[in-house]
Amino acid sequence: MKLWQKDGAKPTNQLIESFTVGRDRELDVLLAPFDLLGSMAHSIMLEKVGLLSYEELQSILNECRKIFKEEITTGQFSIEDGIEDVHSQIEFMLTERIGDTGKKIHSGRSRNDQVLVDLKMFFRDKVEQITQQVNQLFITLQARSEEHKEDLLPGYTHLQIAMPSSFGLWFGAYAESLVDDLTALQGVYKMINKNPLGSGAGYGSSFPLDRKLTTELLGFDDLNYNVVYAQMTRGKMEFALAQAISLFAGTLSRLAMDVCLYNSQNFGFLTLPQEMTTGSSIMPHKKNPDVAEILRGKTNRLKGLATEINFVQSNLPSGYHREFQIIKEIILPALDEFSECLKVADFMVKNLQVKKDILQDPKFDLLFSVENVNKLVVEGTPFRDAYRKVGNEIESGNFTPERELAHTLLGSIGQPATEEIKNAMKKVLEGFKFERTHQAFEKLLDATSFSR
Amino acid sequence: MKLWQKDGAKPTNQLIESFTVGRDRELDVLLAPFDLLGSMAHSIMLEKVGLLSYEELQSILNECRKIFKEEITTGQFSIEDGIEDVHSQIEFMLTERIGDTGKKIHSGRSRNDQVLVDLKMFFRDKVEQITQQVNQLFITLQARSEEHKEDLLPGYTHLQIAMPSSFGLWFGAYAESLVDDLTALQGVYKMINKNPLGSGAGYGSSFPLDRKLTTELLGFDDLNYNVVYAQMTRGKMEFALAQAISLFAGTLSRLAMDVCLYNSQNFGFLTLPQEMTTGSSIMPHKKNPDVAEILRGKTNRLKGLATEINFVQSNLPSGYHREFQIIKEIILPALDEFSECLKVADFMVKNLQVKKDILQDPKFDLLFSVENVNKLVVEGTPFRDAYRKVGNEIESGNFTPERELAHTLLGSIGQPATEEIKNAMKKVLEGFKFERTHQAFEKLLDATSFSR
Amino acid sequence: MKLWQKDGAKPTNQLIESFTVGRDRELDVLLAPFDLLGSMAHSIMLEKVGLLSYEELQSILNECRKIFKEEITTGQFSIEDGIEDVHSQIEFMLTERIGDTGKKIHSGRSRNDQVLVDLKMFFRDKVEQITQQVNQLFITLQARSEEHKEDLLPGYTHLQIAMPSSFGLWFGAYAESLVDDLTALQGVYKMINKNPLGSGAGYGSSFPLDRKLTTELLGFDDLNYNVVYAQMTRGKMEFALAQAISLFAGTLSRLAMDVCLYNSQNFGFLTLPQEMTTGSSIMPHKKNPDVAEILRGKTNRLKGLATEINFVQSNLPSGYHREFQIIKEIILPALDEFSECLKVADFMVKNLQVKKDILQDPKFDLLFSVENVNKLVVEGTPFRDAYRKVGNEIESGNFTPERELAHTLLGSIGQPATEEIKNAMKKVLEGFKFERTHQAFEKLLDATSFSR
Amino acid sequence: MKLWQKDGAKPTNQLIESFTVGRDRELDVLLAPFDLLGSMAHSIMLEKVGLLSYEELQSILNECRKIFKEEITTGQFSIEDGIEDVHSQIEFMLTERIGDTGKKIHSGRSRNDQVLVDLKMFFRDKVEQITQQVNQLFITLQARSEEHKEDLLPGYTHLQIAMPSSFGLWFGAYAESLVDDLTALQGVYKMINKNPLGSGAGYGSSFPLDRKLTTELLGFDDLNYNVVYAQMTRGKMEFALAQAISLFAGTLSRLAMDVCLYNSQNFGFLTLPQEMTTGSSIMPHKKNPDVAEILRGKTNRLKGLATEINFVQSNLPSGYHREFQIIKEIILPALDEFSECLKVADFMVKNLQVKKDILQDPKFDLLFSVENVNKLVVEGTPFRDAYRKVGNEIESGNFTPERELAHTLLGSIGQPATEEIKNAMKKVLEGFKFERTHQAFEKLLDATSFSR
Repeated sequence: MKLWQKDGAKPTNQLIESFTVGRDRELDVLLAPFDLLGSMAHSIMLEKVGLLSYEELQSILNECRKIFKEEITTGQFSIEDGIEDVHSQIEFMLTERIGDTGKKIHSGRSRNDQVLVDLKMFFRDKVEQITQQVNQLFITLQARSEEHKEDLLPGYTHLQIAMPSSFGLWFGAYAESLVDDLTALQGVYKMINKNPLGSGAGYGSSFPLDRKLTTELLGFDDLNYNVVYAQMTRGKMEFALAQAISLFAGTLSRLAMDVCLYNSQNFGFLTLPQEMTTGSSIMPHKKNPDVAEILRGKTNRLKGLATEINFVQSNLPSGYHREFQIIKEIILPALDEFSECLKVADFMVKNLQVKKDILQDPKFDLLFSVENVNKLVVEGTPFRDAYRKVGNEIESGNFTPERELAHTLLGSIGQPATEEIKNAMKKVLEGFKFERTHQAFEKLLDATSFSR
Repeated sequence: MKLWQKDGAKPTNQLIESFTVGRDRELDVLLAPFDLLGSMAHSIMLEKVGLLSYEELQSILNECRKIFKEEITTGQFSIEDGIEDVHSQIEFMLTERIGDTGKKIHSGRSRNDQVLVDLKMFFRDKVEQITQQVNQLFITLQARSEEHKEDLLPGYTHLQIAMPSSFGLWFGAYAESLVDDLTALQGVYKMINKNPLGSGAGYGSSFPLDRKLTTELLGFDDLNYNVVYAQMTRGKMEFALAQAISLFAGTLSRLAMDVCLYNSQNFGFLTLPQEMTTGSSIMPHKKNPDVAEILRGKTNRLKGLATEINFVQSNLPSGYHREFQIIKEIILPALDEFSECLKVADFMVKNLQVKKDILQDPKFDLLFSVENVNKLVVEGTPFRDAYRKVGNEIESGNFTPERELAHTLLGSIGQPATEEIKNAMKKVLEGFKFERTHQAFEKLLDATSFSR
Repeated sequence: MKLWQKDGAKPTNQLIESFTVGRDRELDVLLAPFDLLGSMAHSIMLEKVGLLSYEELQSILNECRKIFKEEITTGQFSIEDGIEDVHSQIEFMLTERIGDTGKKIHSGRSRNDQVLVDLKMFFRDKVEQITQQVNQLFITLQARSEEHKEDLLPGYTHLQIAMPSSFGLWFGAYAESLVDDLTALQGVYKMINKNPLGSGAGYGSSFPLDRKLTTELLGFDDLNYNVVYAQMTRGKMEFALAQAISLFAGTLSRLAMDVCLYNSQNFGFLTLPQEMTTGSSIMPHKKNPDVAEILRGKTNRLKGLATEINFVQSNLPSGYHREFQIIKEIILPALDEFSECLKVADFMVKNLQVKKDILQDPKFDLLFSVENVNKLVVEGTPFRDAYRKVGNEIESGNFTPERELAHTLLGSIGQPATEEIKNAMKKVLEGFKFERTHQAFEKLLDATSFSR
Repeated sequence: MKLWQKDGAKPTNQLIESFTVGRDRELDVLLAPFDLLGSMAHSIMLEKVGLLSYEELQSILNECRKIFKEEITTGQFSIEDGIEDVHSQIEFMLTERIGDTGKKIHSGRSRNDQVLVDLKMFFRDKVEQITQQVNQLFITLQARSEEHKEDLLPGYTHLQIAMPSSFGLWFGAYAESLVDDLTALQGVYKMINKNPLGSGAGYGSSFPLDRKLTTELLGFDDLNYNVVYAQMTRGKMEFALAQAISLFAGTLSRLAMDVCLYNSQNFGFLTLPQEMTTGSSIMPHKKNPDVAEILRGKTNRLKGLATEINFVQSNLPSGYHREFQIIKEIILPALDEFSECLKVADFMVKNLQVKKDILQDPKFDLLFSVENVNKLVVEGTPFRDAYRKVGNEIESGNFTPERELAHTLLGSIGQPATEEIKNAMKKVLEGFKFERTHQAFEKLLDATSFSR
């Protein structure tokens, strides 16, 4: 039974049907709460412009709230066999339960703008969840940064020992990285948080729909004005979201690479508790850091996500194409995978064991060469001459390191700028304004709203 | 219960375990037949070099054949809760059923080379299945090419009408494209079809294993000699396979794009039977070619596969890393998706309805301009002068098309070189030599083999 | 002659030198103005913290302003043979011209933070230039949208005729798309616009540098606090910038694809003036839209840019690595290519010739099916019943289109929301605050600044 | 002056012209020798089928050989200002020098098949050059593998110390890797080495061209039969070539990563001679392995090449599109870059200094744990029990390593299978049959050929 089935037409071929529908029915369950909320907002607007009566509207709102409460929040909602998608399922349920009024809710709407508005609400929700997890990891990283502010670590450039660093800086760097990543995600959130409802199949409608009203009802910041453009955001928003995630993936995969390297016996700067390691089928001594490797692998995999999505839509002319549905199948599992990575990263960072007194080892003497240079500079030698002098001392074997460190520089050893970075994070978090959405949804679901 | 669990050690943390194991247990079931065959070959070799007695070998072979027959071929094999992977499962089953002998089969082996040899056998099998499907599509395309050898079609360059073409050429071009794609796949097959067994964890073994014997027993072409290199083929073979698939993806996605375009009312060259189309929730007239769009989308998605795999392993130093397991999760579902695309493409090509007499429409007059030029050339005008003359006729509105077509050129209109291309395909197919593998496996599973 | 050359050491091997230096010397000329400005700000700060005397500072500022005026703005600045990079060149010039004072400016600085701050200033400048070009294209698209507000165009979904659209919507959609793209670029601009100076080689300095002062002097919004993170922004900012550009690339390539398709004789909705087309060597009638194809190709190429950059840095542990220099070679020419694409897109859009009265053709009758449905809805039939009724009329051949269009919907036919979208663009443009940078640079270059 | 310029038509707009022509004129010079050879073969064929007289043919051949000798081999050939491409340049030169006969050589040809055949010959030539360089690097790696057959190295899995390895294995693994990579390249070579000439603009010709003759004259293996498919190989062959190169890139980048890691003070297994290292502007002690890093970076960059090419052509319907020219601009410089990487890799491998006696360090004791297990196995303990026993010894601190190594396994320590791998390489090299092309070209250029 399809919304578009004509009387007496042959049913769709089975092979074609299973190929084209793909995982739509399974994934659409995730969209159901948003589809209901969107239908409620659309109905309120239809009543306002005269396409539904007050009684019809109340009947729709009551039934939608009932479905939301009894089926969605309890996890019992499902898409029946033979029903194409969540939009059809809800229209059929309403028609079955409240009669002809159910057949009216698709006025001025197409599944194209319906799934678009559902997806936008779904992605908003996911971004909020990701933001919370990112903030949790940020807090953990900052705590460990403060805890190990004074614990020194060799700093490398070109994988060669370079200058003294600290665990405070190392943990803190990843915290600050998350601030920038979240800033980029917020840009995408703003791109997503615009209402496409009313754009229909991508060419609007001849009904006098009030698009600003649904924008407000669903808690959107603004609307996608041009209806042709509204449709163009399909695929584009998923692509932009995948790009934002690849920035986090860059941060997490680098963190995981550092952990793998520093955990190697040749570095030995970090260890994982034994119960976070795994063994080998052949080498009885192994304690492998699989968690860091899998974290690295899963986040590296996410780096290809945007490319995959882009290939699906690249060079398609404007207008809806069916493969936009495939993008749903690509990004939804990837968002879950990313969420799992954030959770595991937080757990791993909490449990990393830091080695103390690493720089005592004489093999790290040369780390201090710049200190010797700087001492000469302070005593009046021009920098380039001081550099040359120390360089020649090293070459001739006459170098004695200045191991005394007294950094006062903001953001440097012992001064990890924890407060400044925390404030930067706070500012980004406030920029999301997630509460606006919460309030809009609460109002829609409140039985006393929108009635005289 | 893990192969590597030490007495009294704390069990692995649950979050870590579920994160790192991923879909291993589910996907490993697909490797089970190959893991059994590999273990049989390894045992035969261990007996030969004195690490198993004749009786131990027979006991192992009998039990493996029993598991193969009673659990694998019936689909009843599964990996029990708490067991890490297929390798552990089979070792535990054998130990449980035939006692201490089961504990001996891991001598001279690591899970690293074991999973590698399993994967290579699995991929060989997949390549064989893909090859059969590609050949089926090839046959269909050639049949339709012959059927529509004389049905003309406008040829486009720059999406502008250019010169006459034919459906015979159009279908046939995709057939020939598959020949080239399969050639590339064969190259990868050769890279895969080398035996890594004996490379252990990537550093060989101090046991005097006979690697040439297992190579022969498992039907491999040759072996990966250097044990460090053998391990390097992990990830590399999946990457190469993904690259080969992206060539097919290029062929199929272009075919699907042509179908979508030619099926548009503005072209109208091809139609799909109504039961292969879908409708719209809002526009009652729509008959959308979703099958071609989803085919295009799924094959375009496959274009990102190699990139995704490459990101997972890029810049990892040599030696095994745990994320190679993730690559399994990436490529296995993609191979199934690709297989489904081949099946649907074949079905779609069989059902495409070709429009006749397209070139009769006067809007296609200019397609024949080269015919006018060529006629002048045959009459003695130098090509460039003839070109200029016809060009000026067109500009001044005095052009009358030479609609008579009499192509005799090999591979051109009316001469689609069907036989030549079929021969090229035959040659490629013969190059795979899949039967060698079949024979090796039959011998291993035959109860009378390898006994005195 | 290298900054780091030790006395008596063997010179670098020639093959190695040319391989590693790459195009650095050529591309570094583009960084020269920013390197000078950065050195001026660094010197002002060094004087403030007591590492330069007032006289030394004045000598440096004067010489830098002189180089800026006489060599940079005149295009005469170049990097001499044998000098490694722009940083060395400027340090050598200063040392040559003002003596030992020149040797002092590298105190508290490494080439790592120096090139980072140079690149950030360079990218800020490029983003400003791109923003101006994007705005120019936006203005052109909006003008054409208004001009053709009433000119109808078939709207397609699934490449099948769907519902009426208009050139007003089509041009306007691309204008609105640029607003979203520019929003994403602004996010990256904010990520770039933070001062890394003082992070040295990635591990700070034991000098008491005043990082907030250089932040202000160079017109940065804020600073990259953590010095380890500051170094991590190398590669990351280029990656993020490449991602932002890929969004524009998606907009422009789709526009170009539409132009190619609509310009095909099978659509015939748009034409290019003859002098913007090219011919064929063999077909005298061709007028090919190469400009749209090359625009499509170049913007599609840009879609791979972020992947390329990501591969270069993926899985590198933290700390500087030499290949970050390669990223410069990748992104700089790509930015120029993108800038050229924007210019050509603007020119092309200005010159597109729009066909009138397209929808008069009876082959577009079915475009109006939703109008018939909506009319029934307005008359009281529930939407789904009206849909079914019209569907059956079409199937049975009894359909007569309602060609009267009276859209009043915001963002729909005849209501392209030009003002609303213009305001959205205005808001984005204001968010950049480019003038802050201009003022900072003017102050640095003003001979009367920073003197008592 | 364009081949297709009509009398009295407006010239192409300048902005459009420079945008669309791009680097064609510069890069086309590289195609000139092949364009001449292709024109000679085409002319010989035209004479055979009666479209040129014997005298006309001789005049063309003589002039082509003259241009080849006097302008191509001397490097003096160039494309004049205002001439579009190499094809036009040569047609103009011939027309200018031998009169109307020059105007006849474009009969039965389009620039589409002309550039295709040129590119195929160009890529064949490049593959030959790459193959030689790969073989050179292979020889170097094998030599170093033999030289350090007995020099032990810790083997790592999960970046954790695992089992003993050797420099012999390490160098040799990369040698064997090149054999597989070259196998894949050979597959692509076979795809390239088919003659497209006669396919015209992608729709053949009504002239009775003898495509088998030009196939033989130009030394091709076979022809692209279907003319529509012949055109489809454009873009596809470059994509396949880029994919093959990405396999080499994987090998070289991993080699470079290993060098960077092993050269780090924390490993210290390899060093580079000082003149192959560079210094720091701030840290006087640095000796950075830039050569390995840049090698890693440049080869990693090549991993994105296929994606970039694929984006340019993805979702284009069949038939020529102008952006195929852009692919030329992408792949040609990349091939040169790759060639440079091979050269530098060879130089670097030759100069790596290997540290001796690494495994003497007690921190590597656990590397030998499998030896202890194997000893127990040889003494009769089942493997899994022996594993557990040694595991418990390690946990309880009672482990004493069996440092005696006596590997006899093919491909393992001390047995790097140098001869077997050399034979595998030999077999691949023979499969290219480059000499066939050389002979064909010599015959075409020999003044006594093709005359009565």
